[in-house]
Amino acid sequence: MTQTLPFPILQALVGDEEVGAFFSNEAELSAMLRVEAALAEAEAKAGLIGEEAARRIAEVCESFQADWTKLAEGLARDGVIVPDFVKQLRATVGEPHGQSVHLGATSQDIIDTALVLRLKSVIEVLGHRLDTLIQSLDGLKRRDGSARLMAHTRMQQALPFSAADKIDTWIQPLERHREALQALAPRQLVLQLGGPIGTRGELKGHGDAVADAMAEILGLGLAPSWHSQRDRIGEFGAFLSLLTGTLGKIGQDIALMAQNEVGEVRLASGGGSSAMPHKSNPVPAEVLVTLARFNAGMLGTLHQALVHENERSGAAWTLEWMVLPQMVVSSAAALSRAHGLIASMSFVPSKAAEK
Amino acid sequence: MTQTLPFPILQALVGDEEVGAFFSNEAELSAMLRVEAALAEAEAKAGLIGEEAARRIAEVCESFQADWTKLAEGLARDGVIVPDFVKQLRATVGEPHGQSVHLGATSQDIIDTALVLRLKSVIEVLGHRLDTLIQSLDGLKRRDGSARLMAHTRMQQALPFSAADKIDTWIQPLERHREALQALAPRQLVLQLGGPIGTRGELKGHGDAVADAMAEILGLGLAPSWHSQRDRIGEFGAFLSLLTGTLGKIGQDIALMAQNEVGEVRLASGGGSSAMPHKSNPVPAEVLVTLARFNAGMLGTLHQALVHENERSGAAWTLEWMVLPQMVVSSAAALSRAHGLIASMSFVPSKAAEK
Amino acid sequence: MTQTLPFPILQALVGDEEVGAFFSNEAELSAMLRVEAALAEAEAKAGLIGEEAARRIAEVCESFQADWTKLAEGLARDGVIVPDFVKQLRATVGEPHGQSVHLGATSQDIIDTALVLRLKSVIEVLGHRLDTLIQSLDGLKRRDGSARLMAHTRMQQALPFSAADKIDTWIQPLERHREALQALAPRQLVLQLGGPIGTRGELKGHGDAVADAMAEILGLGLAPSWHSQRDRIGEFGAFLSLLTGTLGKIGQDIALMAQNEVGEVRLASGGGSSAMPHKSNPVPAEVLVTLARFNAGMLGTLHQALVHENERSGAAWTLEWMVLPQMVVSSAAALSRAHGLIASMSFVPSKAAEK
Amino acid sequence: MTQTLPFPILQALVGDEEVGAFFSNEAELSAMLRVEAALAEAEAKAGLIGEEAARRIAEVCESFQADWTKLAEGLARDGVIVPDFVKQLRATVGEPHGQSVHLGATSQDIIDTALVLRLKSVIEVLGHRLDTLIQSLDGLKRRDGSARLMAHTRMQQALPFSAADKIDTWIQPLERHREALQALAPRQLVLQLGGPIGTRGELKGHGDAVADAMAEILGLGLAPSWHSQRDRIGEFGAFLSLLTGTLGKIGQDIALMAQNEVGEVRLASGGGSSAMPHKSNPVPAEVLVTLARFNAGMLGTLHQALVHENERSGAAWTLEWMVLPQMVVSSAAALSRAHGLIASMSFVPSKAAEK
Repeated sequence: MTQTLPFPILQALVGDEEVGAFFSNEAELSAMLRVEAALAEAEAKAGLIGEEAARRIAEVCESFQADWTKLAEGLARDGVIVPDFVKQLRATVGEPHGQSVHLGATSQDIIDTALVLRLKSVIEVLGHRLDTLIQSLDGLKRRDGSARLMAHTRMQQALPFSAADKIDTWIQPLERHREALQALAPRQLVLQLGGPIGTRGELKGHGDAVADAMAEILGLGLAPSWHSQRDRIGEFGAFLSLLTGTLGKIGQDIALMAQNEVGEVRLASGGGSSAMPHKSNPVPAEVLVTLARFNAGMLGTLHQALVHENERSGAAWTLEWMVLPQMVVSSAAALSRAHGLIASMSFVPSKAAEK
Repeated sequence: MTQTLPFPILQALVGDEEVGAFFSNEAELSAMLRVEAALAEAEAKAGLIGEEAARRIAEVCESFQADWTKLAEGLARDGVIVPDFVKQLRATVGEPHGQSVHLGATSQDIIDTALVLRLKSVIEVLGHRLDTLIQSLDGLKRRDGSARLMAHTRMQQALPFSAADKIDTWIQPLERHREALQALAPRQLVLQLGGPIGTRGELKGHGDAVADAMAEILGLGLAPSWHSQRDRIGEFGAFLSLLTGTLGKIGQDIALMAQNEVGEVRLASGGGSSAMPHKSNPVPAEVLVTLARFNAGMLGTLHQALVHENERSGAAWTLEWMVLPQMVVSSAAALSRAHGLIASMSFVPSKAAEK
Repeated sequence: MTQTLPFPILQALVGDEEVGAFFSNEAELSAMLRVEAALAEAEAKAGLIGEEAARRIAEVCESFQADWTKLAEGLARDGVIVPDFVKQLRATVGEPHGQSVHLGATSQDIIDTALVLRLKSVIEVLGHRLDTLIQSLDGLKRRDGSARLMAHTRMQQALPFSAADKIDTWIQPLERHREALQALAPRQLVLQLGGPIGTRGELKGHGDAVADAMAEILGLGLAPSWHSQRDRIGEFGAFLSLLTGTLGKIGQDIALMAQNEVGEVRLASGGGSSAMPHKSNPVPAEVLVTLARFNAGMLGTLHQALVHENERSGAAWTLEWMVLPQMVVSSAAALSRAHGLIASMSFVPSKAAEK
Repeated sequence: MTQTLPFPILQALVGDEEVGAFFSNEAELSAMLRVEAALAEAEAKAGLIGEEAARRIAEVCESFQADWTKLAEGLARDGVIVPDFVKQLRATVGEPHGQSVHLGATSQDIIDTALVLRLKSVIEVLGHRLDTLIQSLDGLKRRDGSARLMAHTRMQQALPFSAADKIDTWIQPLERHREALQALAPRQLVLQLGGPIGTRGELKGHGDAVADAMAEILGLGLAPSWHSQRDRIGEFGAFLSLLTGTLGKIGQDIALMAQNEVGEVRLASGGGSSAMPHKSNPVPAEVLVTLARFNAGMLGTLHQALVHENERSGAAWTLEWMVLPQMVVSSAAALSRAHGLIASMSFVPSKAAEK
């Protein structure tokens, strides 16, 4: 018998294992190591550090084992994990190459670029899931589209239409979200490299060359340092909330249509009740509504972090850390729940619509 | 002596006369009349109503005087102004053409398209102001860019840099917002025409033709009916909050640099105090922070309205009405305050940065 | 025919005339004049200004006619209306008593106390409306309480119960809100007097005596200066959002029960549609949901203003001004809509519950 | 070398181990077991189940080992953990007493009461920390209170005052929060027992007796079933956000005073930078601002869950689960960070204030 779970159990309902994994401690560390290795390689190319130093750093980044307790203490003390991480990394690289680690970079370069690397994977997953969901909806439309339903406006019966009409109103915004994701990826997936105050000034005139090389190594786009310009993060958050908003609308529709009195939708299997065995609850539909409202509220909070004082705001940046990963995971979960829901539902012709 | 003001006085601080005017009762009515006239013209073209009816409707729409008291009563009763508006309009058009008014359309077609018409003007104004602001910042950079300042990270002095470096971090996101506005305009500025349940079904097979003609008459793009798909509204709100977020960040920076102890910025004229004549308060800088935090919170509220049940949600739609205009006006006000602030400030070389 | 309205027409749907009036320009000015007159009277009592000065100030405050254009300009410049207001007031008082106006006070003393004076009236109105609403619900329970309904959990039919059971779940939180309003009034309705930096230091040792006298004159409680301590405002906002949340839940329930397919509630008169004459929309029920979601979002924004830097934050204070009045009016409107809804609805025994 | 951490590392910065533990899977399960045992004991007392059954259930609840994988699957399927939990518990209790487990109760009774049990501990911890923090501030005032500082309004120097004046503005709201916590505890800490539809109807006339006994066993207050009345939760959230708002204001003040250019506060040890060894960042002060903004935003989201449709809303309830624990932990963390900050800071007389 399993005695415990490695995650808060609520994640079983509102979380997403695949996308949640991008925000694990291990995934963050791994992305930071990729960034430090790419920095070293790029700096070697620009002649700022030796080839041997870069090789040694790359080698250590491959196999680095962090002292997590010290990382946590460092984060609590410094407000960011990087100072202690760099200290550990330098110690592991050892003499004479330790000082070549993290040269001319600042904490934010590592954290932000490591975030972008993971968002790249996130965007791929979300895109794939959006495609799959749209396909499922297309399939549902082909199968059940001719069913007559009653349209409802302002919570009242309006006029009859078809399931295909209904499904179209679900697919259309999803297609816009698919396009939007495509369009925002090149804006989002850009390197962060600025050094202590965002000017690449510590890279002794080689800043842009190092940035070019790093971006190429990491498969990211180029942009001037954006330490204090958080509009990209805010834009991505808005995309996520628009997406979960659309999915929440679909969930709300399905929960309304699945009401016993309405009965325009049949769900393959509903959630059980501890007290009423006859019930079949539209759990995934409700969860879509939950995730939409959650992300909407979180978006309002995330945008508070746009007010980023001077060259780096500890307060605003930490707020992003608390909010963005939850929004990403909620969005991924919503796509997955929506797909399961669509795949297992069928429309039931409405008697009211037949009249 | 003026005895009163036609607007809440707080608007003098956080409002915008030019853009606020697009959301006046009169502007809304006028836009609704344009939509009804275009609908009639388009329907005449499609042969759904007679040419004469369309001419009569167009004529009445030019000079229509509403009974505002009845419109207000109708709005309170019906949850939307259109039923009473159409009733008044039909009565004014008179027999035999009264019934040709609003044919096959629904309230939401009129309200949403009338909103889009005004957003078209709003987008033009915002775009123009963004251009002007970026130019002001370019000018400030040319004039003061070489001033040495102290960069600050996490509320502490970091390293010296130049005013030009600082200004660059303000201009870059504004340029992205300028591009984003350009890119979103064609997505936003689309006709809404769906009829009662969004299918254009009452237009007897001429729905798409009527929509095409209306869009052309009104200078809008085409889209399938989007009654219950509020992602466009949500996307526009997100743009506004990103914009005010960037401006709030600029305001926060200026308020911090204008602190007496820091003194890296001189404001031409500050706000006075009722108790301390020596003070010169950075009022417009503070207002930028206010508007950023306001719009961020409002965005979180606006996105709650994405969960739009079935073919039309009275609850969610009304929430949009309460939120979106305030966000638009706040954004316009922020651009205007930011421009005034930039135009009247100068950088003062920092003694700390000279060391 | 009325040509225009003195207010944004949306107020006909979501506003409240009686409570909205407390936030008019005129009401604010009038409250500010009461505060300045009370300050002068209290200062005369403490010997800080002459009796004659206080009399002259009181006299002018009775009949003062503001130059609103200049007040608006002053507000735009100073970030607060008080400096120009005091200048005008002093000029009207004239020599030799002009300088006795506003002695030792600061803008925030006037604005905050003038707000509290109006909140006192607001609290009375809300309390009275809560009483009336609870009575209506009691009446509905007496009349329709025995009707059998179907309880619903998770959007599915659960088990039968009675209308009285349902109504109890509406009344109970309202009774808690009634008690909470009673309990918070003495905490909320306190004088603000602190002088420029909140220490009453400019009142030369008579600060507490002046505060005592002012509080008595104005019928307010006493508290140390709370310029930068906005928890009272935040607490009041939370009360409002809890209240509209409860009313929104009632509205949601009624909209769900009034669905044609469910039919457990009959509304005396529903909102009409511009396209579907057969419809009867549950407009007030929907508006209750709207106002709940609006106030919830606004509360999240209001609480951002708790972070009030140092002795006075222009940014945070202005944010309060943008948010709190809207929340108050929305709450008053919700109470009024709820009362109208309850007064005109009846329960219809559910066939499902009879089985 | 530690290879991993049992929690997301960000918790080291913004989390709280002691209070976080109340929201672990284990703590939730343990509280649920206490509730089921108390229910059985109370039902035995009322004669609804046998004494022996109650003893067997109590015994099993002491030592129950859950199959967590199945609980997680059940939660994902049913939207709530209780159905599978009860199934496991019944199986462990075995024949003939299995069916006496959970008799007449519903999932929400268990979840909500188990939450309240943990909030009871939370309220104790928060109260204790508030006391400690107020004591620290009193101590700081005694030690440094006479230091002359410069008061700042609207981000500008105003007039000199003392550190004691400043500290008073921090202590006063904290004392109000302390009183508020005391006052809300009896309202919050009440049993939830309603059965499937909140009427205690399945308890065959013994509902109130069972509730009385359960409340006594669990040390909770009594209240009618509040399944769909979430004002208590909303009120507690508001308390938390008011508290973190006050602490965020303190943090903001300290970050402003600790600016190098201002230098009115000295922090014992600041956070280090990966790029600038000379820096000493006011990390805990920044974190207080972060937590204030986070909780403010979360409160706006939590209040969306007040709109709880009918007898139980899966969507709104799940939203609470996503939001409330984070708010509680953030509040506890803020109290702990504030205490550490106050304990290690000292005021530095301001040169500007000496002039």
